[in-house]
Amino acid sequence: MPAFIFDLDGTLVDSVYQHVMAWHAALRECGFDLSVWRIHRRIGMSGGLMLRALARELNMDLDDATVRRLTELHALEFQRRAPTISVLPGARELLAELRAWKVPYIIATSGRVETARPMLQLLGVGEDEPVITRENVKRAKPDPDLFLTAAQALHAKDVDTMVVGDSVWDMLAARRANFLGVGVLSGGYGQQELEQAGAYRVYADPDEMRRHLDELGVRPE
Amino acid sequence: MPAFIFDLDGTLVDSVYQHVMAWHAALRECGFDLSVWRIHRRIGMSGGLMLRALARELNMDLDDATVRRLTELHALEFQRRAPTISVLPGARELLAELRAWKVPYIIATSGRVETARPMLQLLGVGEDEPVITRENVKRAKPDPDLFLTAAQALHAKDVDTMVVGDSVWDMLAARRANFLGVGVLSGGYGQQELEQAGAYRVYADPDEMRRHLDELGVRPE
Repeated sequence: MPAFIFDLDGTLVDSVYQHVMAWHAALRECGFDLSVWRIHRRIGMSGGLMLRALARELNMDLDDATVRRLTELHALEFQRRAPTISVLPGARELLAELRAWKVPYIIATSGRVETARPMLQLLGVGEDEPVITRENVKRAKPDPDLFLTAAQALHAKDVDTMVVGDSVWDMLAARRANFLGVGVLSGGYGQQELEQAGAYRVYADPDEMRRHLDELGVRPE
Repeated sequence: MPAFIFDLDGTLVDSVYQHVMAWHAALRECGFDLSVWRIHRRIGMSGGLMLRALARELNMDLDDATVRRLTELHALEFQRRAPTISVLPGARELLAELRAWKVPYIIATSGRVETARPMLQLLGVGEDEPVITRENVKRAKPDPDLFLTAAQALHAKDVDTMVVGDSVWDMLAARRANFLGVGVLSGGYGQQELEQAGAYRVYADPDEMRRHLDELGVRPE
């Protein structure tokens, strides 16, 4: 039986666009006018890595103080938008089904625990359930550390482990960890973008994945 | 020499994500919890058609009164977000270059004139320049009416006419009008989505298109 590592934003909760608009607002406040789609395409990386990648695209210099200010502004702007965030269709049911069938799974997010906690509550994930956040690893996606740490917590072997995520960075980090990547479209990436980044299978959202668990080798015991 | 028909939202101005979030807010206000990516993937169609498509995906019934209320709420929510909208990189320069080289072009949007006007002002398009809006045609994209009316205004023949747009619906409507479609990624669709819908060429944004006009058969006289 496989074990699953789930990304959070865009995979289980519908929060990608709020993150995108929060970064857009933060960048504007610091005088950087960056096209929204370029931010969208970088979401899912670690915040610091994303800012460096965007700075390169803009040919702009970001000193440490600006990175800190942008990170703080993003947190504030995201907070403002948090009330508009919902759980993605089928996410709660998918996790419940995996629990019922005793399929090991864990949530691993490149976000910080304070940002993740309210969304985990929406999902009905208790405080006692293990979750890997940014604080638990040195490097965030597309480095594989987050997923390797998650697999360790599950005592899962690489041949059995699948990473479920909405972004190209999830798929790339999964491959670096030698895990299969399962893509979902609910973060707003295109299907072919995920496939080209190595997705083994792509579903619309957690609901469609739940209805096709047999394709991933999951069956009731 | 080719003639160009430009879509507005996501093609010349960076307004797609604001439209997406405005529809998301309007739908929530009416009690419909629709995933943001599904709204994003329907943007660029006529508002009415989009709501019908979303209703089908949600298995929900939308009566005429609800459609009217959603349309009004979207306009209000979009208005609130309008100050965060910028011109896309290279858009002004691209239009200026076409004017300088006497290449015929026109802007055709499935939005209404009152929504389009402030964005045309951002772009530096004068009140005297012809623009085709939702009011000028019976059916909006993916029907070809908007682009056919635009080509008529340009006195352009179909073999010479290219439609520049950011969405799958632009590319489909272009094909129905027998025009070539040129895609831009600045609306947040993936490159392959646009190519699969028939894009003849895809650029990142107006700036990249401007630097490759020779590929489209445009050259200084």
